[in-house]
Amino acid sequence: MRATFIHAPGDIRVENVPDPEIVNPTDAVVRVVATCVCGSDLWEYRGISPVGTPHPIGHEYVGVVEETGSEVTSVRPGQFVIGSFFASDNACAICRAGYQASCPDGEFINGCQAEYVRVPLADGTLVALDRRPAEEHIPGLLALSDVASTGWYAAVAAGAGPGATVAVVGDGAVGLCGVIAARWLGAERIITMSRHASRRKLALELGATALVAERGDEGAARIRELTGGIGADAVLECVGTPEAMRQALRSARPGGTVGFVGVPHGIRIDGRELFRSQVALRGGPAPVRRFLPGLIEQVLDGRIDPGKVFDLTLPLDHAAEGYRAMDERRAVKTLLYP
Amino acid sequence: MRATFIHAPGDIRVENVPDPEIVNPTDAVVRVVATCVCGSDLWEYRGISPVGTPHPIGHEYVGVVEETGSEVTSVRPGQFVIGSFFASDNACAICRAGYQASCPDGEFINGCQAEYVRVPLADGTLVALDRRPAEEHIPGLLALSDVASTGWYAAVAAGAGPGATVAVVGDGAVGLCGVIAARWLGAERIITMSRHASRRKLALELGATALVAERGDEGAARIRELTGGIGADAVLECVGTPEAMRQALRSARPGGTVGFVGVPHGIRIDGRELFRSQVALRGGPAPVRRFLPGLIEQVLDGRIDPGKVFDLTLPLDHAAEGYRAMDERRAVKTLLYP
Repeated sequence: MRATFIHAPGDIRVENVPDPEIVNPTDAVVRVVATCVCGSDLWEYRGISPVGTPHPIGHEYVGVVEETGSEVTSVRPGQFVIGSFFASDNACAICRAGYQASCPDGEFINGCQAEYVRVPLADGTLVALDRRPAEEHIPGLLALSDVASTGWYAAVAAGAGPGATVAVVGDGAVGLCGVIAARWLGAERIITMSRHASRRKLALELGATALVAERGDEGAARIRELTGGIGADAVLECVGTPEAMRQALRSARPGGTVGFVGVPHGIRIDGRELFRSQVALRGGPAPVRRFLPGLIEQVLDGRIDPGKVFDLTLPLDHAAEGYRAMDERRAVKTLLYP
Repeated sequence: MRATFIHAPGDIRVENVPDPEIVNPTDAVVRVVATCVCGSDLWEYRGISPVGTPHPIGHEYVGVVEETGSEVTSVRPGQFVIGSFFASDNACAICRAGYQASCPDGEFINGCQAEYVRVPLADGTLVALDRRPAEEHIPGLLALSDVASTGWYAAVAAGAGPGATVAVVGDGAVGLCGVIAARWLGAERIITMSRHASRRKLALELGATALVAERGDEGAARIRELTGGIGADAVLECVGTPEAMRQALRSARPGGTVGFVGVPHGIRIDGRELFRSQVALRGGPAPVRRFLPGLIEQVLDGRIDPGKVFDLTLPLDHAAEGYRAMDERRAVKTLLYP
């Protein structure tokens, strides 16, 4: 099959490799119908995280089950499935508490920008549809396997609920999905921090009620100005840099919460400052599996369309261009069809 | 009047100074009936926080209103009052959200280890009883002005609720009050980390269901061992040192919360580690005023007795000995009668 590899920063290649096979009896092999490039793939692409030896890349996927291991009971060959980027048993105490991305028996799934992928713990990771979805829903369903569920988690973790004033730090695909989530969860005001024309437009379309172009302390000051001097109830930190976290913490009101889902790079939080600010922090890798059943229904019913974050669609063979376009901010998010 | 001053680390003196007077029309002057020494007073006493120039000390008090400014309407001379260590208007958006210790018009009240104290924003800070309480309730009511409400906030912030497994880091007065709170809030298991015989005994008496003597990573490992390898749902960090915070964060399960109320000294939290642990943080100075009405009722009804944390009672003139006994861990908390 063809699979996408990262060899070094900026060096993405689609290569021929053997098809994946069932290794454990709890595995499934999925024929990938659609996959995409994640903002977190760019950490390696940009050389911010080390690449190490060349390796398969990509962790977002929807597809059709090709084969299952002998112990798999909840999905069967031929079914269309959506799965989390993190395999989980969805049965242990941590999964049952709703934190499947921390499942002690789980593992990160990599190598999804390919024709086939082996999914461990298939019963606890995949959700099967009862029929193949319409083509128009495939981008939205694909988004659920990471980006949309991650934006959703940011909003849930931050406590974006009915009546809340929400600020979103980060105008990438996760931040935009955070806007969708905040709107759906009933937030009254959603302030997106962005200075990028097409992203500002999309944010408004998805539910943002105001835009802030300023960044850093100036951006945080603008949020306080817009909230009667107080700060936002819920802030979604969807970037992962020290600047973004600082901006998020300073945009929240005392008693407010920062939901952080950007993978932290070089972030150190000063305890005294956090204490004085009276701002809470909740975040981590999104428990996608918790959200999948509900969000799948919403996508199929047309109530939300996180597929709107894809503004570039390419065949898998052109994956390298997909990365380039995102790196140069010509695209928000690239969808790849194998 | 006599008032307690700190001159330098280890140097506590009770001196004669002019009685306080009404400065602003929203002030009240309170004749102090009982006051006490706080663990946070020891930061200066031990030279960990700089003392600066000699200044009055103490921020916990119950007493009788002596005089009120012209704009004070909710308390009047002769009433017995309990107040927060932080003056607040209890009317602005932040106070109404329940974060009175972050009131932008508020201020920290210092100088309460004295015969009289001036309380700013009396209407928003003090709660008056309709009669003078029985002597036996005075220690419990005094504890509400900081230590007991701070322990309460740790438990509330950590999400210690019905059925929860709670771990308490810190066996000082705040940690012990955290045990009282966790029990009252319905926690199923309350594990106190302590190796000090008399404090272990008191923790069990107040509601702890298990004790852990180990500290640091070993202590956190013991908590995981006691919780099926997972960690506690809610952890109360009641110390404020880097070691205590680290122990708290590592004792919580993924999705759990650390409620932190120890004033942080030198704490830096690694963003990546926090992200991976999926543990939330909520803390800050306790919004005492939020809890006062409910907790006063509980003390007067005999349902809780946070007065039990006082194990040394001295006349105000012996304040220096009260500090010494706490510094040397001969006393958990010292009550002073002017």
